[in-house]
Amino acid sequence: MTDLLDQLRTAVGDGHILTDEADMAAYVVDWTGVHAGRARAVVRPGSTDEVAAVLAACHAAGVPVVPQGGNTGLVGGGVPDSSGSSVVLSLGRMRTIRDVDPVAGTITVDAGVVLADVQVAAEEADRLFPMSLGSEGSCTIGGNLATNAGGTAVLRYGMTRELVLGLEVVLPDGRVWDGMRALRKDNTGYSLKDLFVGSEGTLGVITGAVLRLFPATPRHATAWVAVPSVEAAVSLLGTAQQHAGAHLATFEIANRQALDLVLAHLPGASDPLAEPSDWYVLVELAGAASDDGLDDALEAILTSAVDDGLATDAAVAGSPAQRSSLWALREGISEAQKVEGATLKHDVTLPIASLASWASSMGPILEEVLPGVRPVTYGHVGDGNLHYNLSAPVGGDDDLRAAAHDLSTAIYDSVAAGHGSISAEHGLGRTKAAAGASYKSAVEVDLMRAVKAALDPRGLMNPGVLLPRLG
Amino acid sequence: MTDLLDQLRTAVGDGHILTDEADMAAYVVDWTGVHAGRARAVVRPGSTDEVAAVLAACHAAGVPVVPQGGNTGLVGGGVPDSSGSSVVLSLGRMRTIRDVDPVAGTITVDAGVVLADVQVAAEEADRLFPMSLGSEGSCTIGGNLATNAGGTAVLRYGMTRELVLGLEVVLPDGRVWDGMRALRKDNTGYSLKDLFVGSEGTLGVITGAVLRLFPATPRHATAWVAVPSVEAAVSLLGTAQQHAGAHLATFEIANRQALDLVLAHLPGASDPLAEPSDWYVLVELAGAASDDGLDDALEAILTSAVDDGLATDAAVAGSPAQRSSLWALREGISEAQKVEGATLKHDVTLPIASLASWASSMGPILEEVLPGVRPVTYGHVGDGNLHYNLSAPVGGDDDLRAAAHDLSTAIYDSVAAGHGSISAEHGLGRTKAAAGASYKSAVEVDLMRAVKAALDPRGLMNPGVLLPRLG
Repeated sequence: MTDLLDQLRTAVGDGHILTDEADMAAYVVDWTGVHAGRARAVVRPGSTDEVAAVLAACHAAGVPVVPQGGNTGLVGGGVPDSSGSSVVLSLGRMRTIRDVDPVAGTITVDAGVVLADVQVAAEEADRLFPMSLGSEGSCTIGGNLATNAGGTAVLRYGMTRELVLGLEVVLPDGRVWDGMRALRKDNTGYSLKDLFVGSEGTLGVITGAVLRLFPATPRHATAWVAVPSVEAAVSLLGTAQQHAGAHLATFEIANRQALDLVLAHLPGASDPLAEPSDWYVLVELAGAASDDGLDDALEAILTSAVDDGLATDAAVAGSPAQRSSLWALREGISEAQKVEGATLKHDVTLPIASLASWASSMGPILEEVLPGVRPVTYGHVGDGNLHYNLSAPVGGDDDLRAAAHDLSTAIYDSVAAGHGSISAEHGLGRTKAAAGASYKSAVEVDLMRAVKAALDPRGLMNPGVLLPRLG
Repeated sequence: MTDLLDQLRTAVGDGHILTDEADMAAYVVDWTGVHAGRARAVVRPGSTDEVAAVLAACHAAGVPVVPQGGNTGLVGGGVPDSSGSSVVLSLGRMRTIRDVDPVAGTITVDAGVVLADVQVAAEEADRLFPMSLGSEGSCTIGGNLATNAGGTAVLRYGMTRELVLGLEVVLPDGRVWDGMRALRKDNTGYSLKDLFVGSEGTLGVITGAVLRLFPATPRHATAWVAVPSVEAAVSLLGTAQQHAGAHLATFEIANRQALDLVLAHLPGASDPLAEPSDWYVLVELAGAASDDGLDDALEAILTSAVDDGLATDAAVAGSPAQRSSLWALREGISEAQKVEGATLKHDVTLPIASLASWASSMGPILEEVLPGVRPVTYGHVGDGNLHYNLSAPVGGDDDLRAAAHDLSTAIYDSVAAGHGSISAEHGLGRTKAAAGASYKSAVEVDLMRAVKAALDPRGLMNPGVLLPRLG
């Protein structure tokens, strides 16, 4: 395998290949700390051609490749297993924004551009790139594409998939598919881009994309609303849609446990309301500079909500700074929960109509499996998507780890029975590859394996991710 | 093959299999009349199980299957070739609307439900199913899904693909994939539904779907606007978006030749404006019952357009009847052109910024190929999509047929050079399978063939459609 390393060195340049354990450490452990693998090498190509050379070399040598963006994934999809046989291919050096076309409403990017940088480039052209998530300061657009990322703007703009017009992908054997179209409509064959989006690096490596831009929404009306229950939150969503229509941009939920963790661990966070509530909703309307009815519409939503018993109190942001601090309460949950201690993450969708009853049914079931377990629940209620995360009982991190499989199984069984999904937006990665397959029909798993075998016949792209290994 | 016919008879019942040439006639010739094929038999299953039995029997016998919906396609994708070896599988008996859930915003349908019936079922539940196209009174939702149909609502709601939550598909060997999810978010593996949507019956047979519903838009403000050029129309689109935002529902273009054909051939049609214009735009804003600013917004758009020289005159619909008659001018073009005589259809997309220069460049090129040829141009300018159809020179139907290949090649070469698509919404079918492949890279054709081979290894599903036959 010295040959392979030499080839990789030639492909990316001496300074962009890491083989020392210490140098590789940041690339082989994921953000959650759950997945700590090993790699033969980490290569950091600087161009599509270099990615192609890396894949061709690994393909010839029969060596598995693990593509990696910002390494912010939550299901171990971007880090290698413990065998040490894989090459990690980091896209982090490919950071060029190739083009911004505000008239056509497109932005063309390298895969390694950080999501926040895509947002900023759009803003500088007086346009909006709507994708927004907690890790936007470090995740890369390539990772967002590979996982079909969700986030807080899905309600209005859809998942990552719906923001993609064209893709550039290096195939497992090193050939490059140039699918960089900038067209809204193109019915000339199978939708290959939709196959690569969400494939978690198991079919090829996305190196570039043409993405949609939208009219800028510089005006906002934002409130942090105390609601008595998930059921009330779902009803409030209807009220908000009725009053705000297409201006409704955000509708996020969090329970009191989630807020408590943020107040405890996030410097400067404070509860915007006087009385505690079991549940909260962050609601935001967004519009163009000329949309001067947003504040009135928000007021109408809140008045109607209080009248109907759907809300008990609300804090309306009176300035950009206040808006940021309300958002920080929502965006800080994941980080705060990490500081608190051991966490078991779940990212589920249910039909919105059954979301409330599902959420209230889970508490007692989990309490039976692990007394004292603390559900820290938040997420995108407008999409039927809850991050149903479990913090350990106080002082019981080891207990949580020991009960992890039983707790997750109880949750997934219940989600499956309710016709939901066990991964709304995080993907399956390594963590859920086996669970994902176990809740699917044999026909569906066969179809997925047929697609995988067709595009990656040697099984070298991110093996063990998305689909469990055979045998 | 008597065995196969017996098996098919058993599968669907004696009364639902046709083998007589005269009985089969309506199923083997397409709407355009260009494709007149032959079939071994036409089978009309009444359920998903019956479709499965038909496919299993054909698979075992090695007999090709051509799935067919309302037989309204324009590229020969739903009719058999002339060999007489295929079985046509018509979904027309599967017309059950399985469920309408206005709260969840979903409708669950059999593939054979006529598009207009889906629209009506949504309306009866005070919701909107936005897909709308000229053939909506006879095309089926299964055909819309198989071709990823476009239409006049793409600007606001996206292509068919974006309206689909779940699918039920019978695979080439007769197994059934139950992907009937009703979730907005589900990141558990490859997006199989996106593979089947737009696959034109070449990977399996769509038998059912869960589709998205939207809030009803009972209020409309509609105008037929005379514009001096395609360039002015594109600029007017920007004006309309600025004033109407998300309320802008329709932005369609037609040239004077298109209107002339409608006035000549559509009973009761009349020109709503006093003076003729080279180009027209049909613009419509749509909103909820509470949206009472639509008329003002339309007025603002038209005033601004006249001030900026983007429009010379406009007729605003003052009643539902007037609205219908404006829409009839747009929807009647395809039919009127058929009455006029031989037509050569093209359905192209270009980046919107280059649409105007492309359209004005084509006239002289085509005039050189066939003097007197008449471009009848209309389409979805908001999506960059023109139906650039050619009517024969007066009295020159045979000349048009003789020059068809050269004319289409001139158009497609020019579209390809402009980074456009040779099929925006009609698909490739039989008509454009070879052209589609010839304008793609070898890598892309390889990928498409790999997908086809993976899902339909015996090549029995709609052979010769979407991809050209090998060898």
